[in-house]
Amino acid sequence: MAEPSKPLRIALAGLGTVGAGVIRLVEANAALIARRAGRPIQITVIGARDRSKDRGVNLAPYVWEDDMVIMGERDDVDVVVELVGGSDGPALSCARTTIEAGKALVTANKAMIAHHGLELAGKAEAAKVALKFEAAVAGGIPVIKGLREGAAANEIERVYGILNGTCNYILSTMEDTGRDFADVLAEAQAKGYAEADPAFDIEGTDAAHKLSILAAIAFGGKLDFAGVDAAGITRLRAADIAQADSLGYVIRLIGMAETVTTAQGKVLFQRVQPHLVPFDHPLAHVDGATNAVVAEGNFSGRLLFQGAGAGEGPTASAVVADLIDIARGEIAAPFSVPVEELEPMPRADAGHRSGRAYVRLMAADRPGVLAEITAAFRDAGVSIESLIQKGRSSDQGAVMVAMVTHEGPESAVGEAVRLLNGSDSLAEPPLVMHILGD
Amino acid sequence: MAEPSKPLRIALAGLGTVGAGVIRLVEANAALIARRAGRPIQITVIGARDRSKDRGVNLAPYVWEDDMVIMGERDDVDVVVELVGGSDGPALSCARTTIEAGKALVTANKAMIAHHGLELAGKAEAAKVALKFEAAVAGGIPVIKGLREGAAANEIERVYGILNGTCNYILSTMEDTGRDFADVLAEAQAKGYAEADPAFDIEGTDAAHKLSILAAIAFGGKLDFAGVDAAGITRLRAADIAQADSLGYVIRLIGMAETVTTAQGKVLFQRVQPHLVPFDHPLAHVDGATNAVVAEGNFSGRLLFQGAGAGEGPTASAVVADLIDIARGEIAAPFSVPVEELEPMPRADAGHRSGRAYVRLMAADRPGVLAEITAAFRDAGVSIESLIQKGRSSDQGAVMVAMVTHEGPESAVGEAVRLLNGSDSLAEPPLVMHILGD
Repeated sequence: MAEPSKPLRIALAGLGTVGAGVIRLVEANAALIARRAGRPIQITVIGARDRSKDRGVNLAPYVWEDDMVIMGERDDVDVVVELVGGSDGPALSCARTTIEAGKALVTANKAMIAHHGLELAGKAEAAKVALKFEAAVAGGIPVIKGLREGAAANEIERVYGILNGTCNYILSTMEDTGRDFADVLAEAQAKGYAEADPAFDIEGTDAAHKLSILAAIAFGGKLDFAGVDAAGITRLRAADIAQADSLGYVIRLIGMAETVTTAQGKVLFQRVQPHLVPFDHPLAHVDGATNAVVAEGNFSGRLLFQGAGAGEGPTASAVVADLIDIARGEIAAPFSVPVEELEPMPRADAGHRSGRAYVRLMAADRPGVLAEITAAFRDAGVSIESLIQKGRSSDQGAVMVAMVTHEGPESAVGEAVRLLNGSDSLAEPPLVMHILGD
Repeated sequence: MAEPSKPLRIALAGLGTVGAGVIRLVEANAALIARRAGRPIQITVIGARDRSKDRGVNLAPYVWEDDMVIMGERDDVDVVVELVGGSDGPALSCARTTIEAGKALVTANKAMIAHHGLELAGKAEAAKVALKFEAAVAGGIPVIKGLREGAAANEIERVYGILNGTCNYILSTMEDTGRDFADVLAEAQAKGYAEADPAFDIEGTDAAHKLSILAAIAFGGKLDFAGVDAAGITRLRAADIAQADSLGYVIRLIGMAETVTTAQGKVLFQRVQPHLVPFDHPLAHVDGATNAVVAEGNFSGRLLFQGAGAGEGPTASAVVADLIDIARGEIAAPFSVPVEELEPMPRADAGHRSGRAYVRLMAADRPGVLAEITAAFRDAGVSIESLIQKGRSSDQGAVMVAMVTHEGPESAVGEAVRLLNGSDSLAEPPLVMHILGD
């Protein structure tokens, strides 16, 4: 690490949208960054797969390095910013060699941190270098800092939020326009709001990456991405959104993690699933590509962090905030407590959870079907608060039955669904969405 | 400062609600705090005006020190937490002697920081000790950290929010119940939500303290509390809230600061005033004693921080977050950049501002009055979007005239009001509230 008065020298690995944004930000705000960091932050080295591509920024001032894996070994680099993406491959090699070379690493790579964060954090702690990833969760919102430091005095009881901007854009557009999922997705892809291969976003994987990172920091538990029970928004219909609206809810893809104390100790529950969110909940007003995270501390109460969840400027803002922390000399444990002190937290199923749920079925339009459905809920011990059967939908010759349950164990709803699964009265498996409580 | 592995030893000056909360928090969360801070945080010394008072916590484990001014000089103290309150007097003496003794100071005292923050920060920088005051603004919300560090890469263009929980409680209760200000205030006092002497809260002074602190950090300008143009909520009527509601707005006391670049350089505009907030703005859904702060960065875009603005637990959470930062070894400039580098920012008047406004007048119920009012607005060049005249109000024999202007210079509305001031057609001076724009 350079002397405090000397510039902090940065290598940028990856020059996509975010990489170009970091260059723009560091150039535009150079003077104020130096004042706040106590020293200049200077990009010295850059590299990406394709050198010839026009990125809309002048790359001439920077040394080009073809091999990002060795950037951290260069004498003119103090910190490598990894913006290549992908959980493994060059990004992971770059991260490992950087830390092993005794240099700090900043990354926006949620997949890599979700899969290899503990290994990298352990290496960084051993090498006494910083590993920071504010940009990996919720774009420009300083929520990792908010949990690691701002809420550090609290036992966090629950952390949840809207963690994927693409899904939120799709859901709020469906809400505003009444159009169906596939239609809105196609438009989002055409506009560049969704990837050509949108699976990571719309199937909940991206939100699950972020949730597992937040949970590890919030609870001081070992990061467990594989333990996230993730569902996406692909099965949602315009009719679900209209139905939710008529009941006083919007639908949002919510990532939620909480710990539960059992006889066997603390266990961790992590789920990504579309939820019904009451109109009067702060998350109901989070529209478009915005992200928002709620953390509930035992002394702070409910804290909400909200802002742009993606995009060039916001993500660059988070990357450079990490660089400023490093320039100020911060080298703290990446997950708030040292990796070896993170508690192993066995996975909880939803058995402990209680609440209300929305269940939607596409049922055959013939006598007795409604009786079959309601019998299954009765047999599972689920009490139904309201039920609406809508007329035949055009696409499947099936009728939509939507119900909201009374407060009760989630396991009972699961049992009702299990009883109905495989029934030839249903055109597709029941869709269950939980209702976000207080 | 003690060795990293040794406890960080705390003296608590002041044992009111927050002081007792800090003791409870440090006891309840001791193990996780030690894990996150890398060392235990241990209260060693306490003191308050009245030793005999029952505070609901066991004070026996702690050394009692009658003189809080010398707490920082004791060998068994690394950090003094000042929770006495008041801009001057014992709080300020305690802060000065602590820093001069080379010890860190944490405070929740917004009045002291607003009035003497620059002096204290200068002393702390010279002594190379930490001065931290997260709890002074917006209770448990880590918004000072969010601005100083989370948004550090950005030029902040505007910072605004709901900074006083008492006012927000009163406004949202007026909204929910249709009751008038004095009535709701009396109830809030009876319930302990408002002070016996509520002037600091309801006249906007408390919000102005907090705003001036936020502005200094956000803009890197010299803190200028006296430069805040502050108005409170005392003149609001139930009819204003009903009128706003019918137009699609709620009323919130908003503190707002922004910089404006003029031919003479950067100037600072700071104002606390009730505003009309559109239903679809995130601040419109901030109810009860909740606080929320929005910061607009040139790369991050709009960031929102929301949570409990006061109370024992949330304020203690912010105090102990500061202590954890100190335990981790953080000694950064209290206002993000060193005091001597903070820019002097001349005060801006509202002349640069443009927007829509709500103007409410209590007019004599006689012919020609409406013509007089509308002529004044015409002469000032203000275009009126809507105007409603309500029947005679019971209390003054006057009729209420409420109007919303089209987008235009604030100065024109000010001119119209000036033309009407002193008119014997008005029972009281016009009430102007600006409409919060995007």
